[in-house]
Amino acid sequence: MPFEITNDLLDQIALLIQQQDDTGLLELLDTEHHADIAELIDDLSIDDATYIIKLLDSELTAEILMEVDDDVREKILKNLSAKEIAEELIELDTDDAADIIAELPDDRKEHVISQISDEEHVADIKELLKYDEDSAGGLMAKELVKVNENWNVLKCVREMRAQAENVTRVHSIYVVDDNDKLKGRLSLKDLLVTSTKTHISDIYIPKVDAVNVNDKAEDVARIMQKYDLEAIPVVDDSNKLMGRITIDDIVDIIKEEADKDYQMAAGLSQDVEADDTIWEHTRARLPWLFLGLIGGIGAAAIMGNFEEMISSHAILFFFTPLIAAMAGNVGVQSSAIIVQGIANGDLKGSVTNRLFKELSLAIVNGLALSVLLFGFTWVWQGHMLTSAAISISLFAVIIVAGIIGTFIPLFLNKRGIDPAIATGPFITTSNDIFGILIYFWIAKTILGI
Amino acid sequence: MPFEITNDLLDQIALLIQQQDDTGLLELLDTEHHADIAELIDDLSIDDATYIIKLLDSELTAEILMEVDDDVREKILKNLSAKEIAEELIELDTDDAADIIAELPDDRKEHVISQISDEEHVADIKELLKYDEDSAGGLMAKELVKVNENWNVLKCVREMRAQAENVTRVHSIYVVDDNDKLKGRLSLKDLLVTSTKTHISDIYIPKVDAVNVNDKAEDVARIMQKYDLEAIPVVDDSNKLMGRITIDDIVDIIKEEADKDYQMAAGLSQDVEADDTIWEHTRARLPWLFLGLIGGIGAAAIMGNFEEMISSHAILFFFTPLIAAMAGNVGVQSSAIIVQGIANGDLKGSVTNRLFKELSLAIVNGLALSVLLFGFTWVWQGHMLTSAAISISLFAVIIVAGIIGTFIPLFLNKRGIDPAIATGPFITTSNDIFGILIYFWIAKTILGI
Repeated sequence: MPFEITNDLLDQIALLIQQQDDTGLLELLDTEHHADIAELIDDLSIDDATYIIKLLDSELTAEILMEVDDDVREKILKNLSAKEIAEELIELDTDDAADIIAELPDDRKEHVISQISDEEHVADIKELLKYDEDSAGGLMAKELVKVNENWNVLKCVREMRAQAENVTRVHSIYVVDDNDKLKGRLSLKDLLVTSTKTHISDIYIPKVDAVNVNDKAEDVARIMQKYDLEAIPVVDDSNKLMGRITIDDIVDIIKEEADKDYQMAAGLSQDVEADDTIWEHTRARLPWLFLGLIGGIGAAAIMGNFEEMISSHAILFFFTPLIAAMAGNVGVQSSAIIVQGIANGDLKGSVTNRLFKELSLAIVNGLALSVLLFGFTWVWQGHMLTSAAISISLFAVIIVAGIIGTFIPLFLNKRGIDPAIATGPFITTSNDIFGILIYFWIAKTILGI
Repeated sequence: MPFEITNDLLDQIALLIQQQDDTGLLELLDTEHHADIAELIDDLSIDDATYIIKLLDSELTAEILMEVDDDVREKILKNLSAKEIAEELIELDTDDAADIIAELPDDRKEHVISQISDEEHVADIKELLKYDEDSAGGLMAKELVKVNENWNVLKCVREMRAQAENVTRVHSIYVVDDNDKLKGRLSLKDLLVTSTKTHISDIYIPKVDAVNVNDKAEDVARIMQKYDLEAIPVVDDSNKLMGRITIDDIVDIIKEEADKDYQMAAGLSQDVEADDTIWEHTRARLPWLFLGLIGGIGAAAIMGNFEEMISSHAILFFFTPLIAAMAGNVGVQSSAIIVQGIANGDLKGSVTNRLFKELSLAIVNGLALSVLLFGFTWVWQGHMLTSAAISISLFAVIIVAGIIGTFIPLFLNKRGIDPAIATGPFITTSNDIFGILIYFWIAKTILGI
């Protein structure tokens, strides 16, 4: 089972393509899983990748195209004719087909759609293209198994067999009325144990979770995760059954959301992977580093304002990196907890309660760390007042940083802005500046300069 | 459908419990989803929570117990007798029952197990308790539907009906030989369309993905995600079918792994949620803050060594927070990309290639930022040599920070240590110190002090 991409395998494939040995390539790849071939395609040149996509059966290549990296897919599709793309799309479920069409340049979309031979498929895809990609409508597939409440089990099984042909996996059988309104569901298991003459209306389960086409993708993910659902039906405002969303798409969303929050916290301004180009990495990294630079210049300017203290109290300047780092660390900790709480939907209680808790926490942590710092600086330099100034400042900075780190993501979220942008360099940079300002102001006051 | 926990609802429940109005409580809760009641239980006092768990039907409360917070469950279980716990466990699938027993204090485990009336259930649970909780064996349930390759479809369906009673969701039907060795699988869909006299050996699909009981949980998650599987059979070294893992458990693992990496990057040393106690938050936050304090003291000590430069070149000291912050930011960016690449299993190429790429990237970013800083400091202070010293140091620090941020997680991973610990405060703190050391050394050399 383990399929491993080695340099030997890559060389072998390159050679087979060079020799145009189609039989050899088919023998090598035809029985592999599409997810494995997709990994292989990601490592090939675009020309070689296109060669393989054109060679293999479209039933297989359609699935491969769904799994390859976005930018690889874009380049391969550029090398395919509208007719070739249409042949791939026919093999795909409507949700995947619509996703691929949405990625095409505007001038190709209509052309590709006009080449799809299956009219029902086209109508479904066109409907899906209307929905926002981050909504339930944008996630759902039209493929599902539905039965009318007025049928009996025999008719139901017969109809299901026909419908199941188009459905990769039958999770649930949805029960609708004559107007296609969602009434409930049947489980395959129940169907196995009931007599063929029973009416569906007598055996279906009327309680069924459903989401609206306009619900946000992340809310759908949360519901499916909370209730351990493997598929969920999607309805419109009048409860008409429009499609269904399956757990594999939700797994991808959960992973993407988590990756995105992680990258924000790490100071990456856009989705970037280890194997992307240096240019892509620079675009992801430079904006936040630039922000950090501005913050550092701001901190330097503040310190410049307190220059008159440098001859008498050089030690104050030695501790600016400590103050800045602690302000940043506390801020990131506090904001990360809020961002994660919001993402998991388990943030309860008012903003005031939240801030009060953070304040208590900052007092505990701040006291512990300030006492340590006071002890160290006193032993090191022997000036009690200077040590007091530094450690009291640390205490104040930890409290302010904790409050800012808690408040900003809560505020952004209230305003409908992704709170994750408040983590990472944004909070570190602003806290650096606040921290140093507070530090010198307190020190100046205590030392009476 | 939307179930919302309001203060009114909480008050109403508290009152009903106080009045011991069991009928009222049952009316209010009996038809709600276990995941909703679990959320409610998390918000109640432990005594009230216990009251509800004892009141509701164990078929429902068993599922509720699986969904509540770990610490809430621990406290509720303390309030239940061994017999009461055993009644909950009978309702649960073997994997969940084993997880709960594993959480009990050692002296209660045996006692609770001895109270479970179903001998087969006990044997299954005892088997599962042998496996490491982070292995496929620790994740799998014994409940599954399996048929013998020598049966025909009729016998198969009859046996399946009996087995399906114990299985919450039938994903796949596994086909085994007389020795319980995994041979392949049947889909329910296939079974629906085949004549009852057909032999299973003629229709089963011999290709089936499986994992070994000893495989790591995160590898199982990766395989199921890559191949879009909703269930995977687990076999032992001799290919004997031992159990199966379903996607809902994997979704939880993916979420937990992502949360863990995120918390490490944010400087939280253990799993902590917004609603945990101040004590739990302190334990999660203080260790990394303490590390940051040590780093800051180290930076101060280094600066103390360069004190002789302070009267002639005060400006150098103004830029230490900038240098430290940039070293930290670059380090976190680089290490996050490596950590995420390792977690997603898409890190290819040798360590040397990876470091070379990071070096190129650091040169690009470093040049852009250094030129900006040079321009700013020159305009501000008018000393070209000082400006050169500061900006050349920034360039050097960015390169060193990028290399350290890339190398450390790769090194930890090679050593079998979770590379995520290299992100966040660990990398920021060490880079702070390195950064300031490099900075003053370069400045001293350039300025000829």
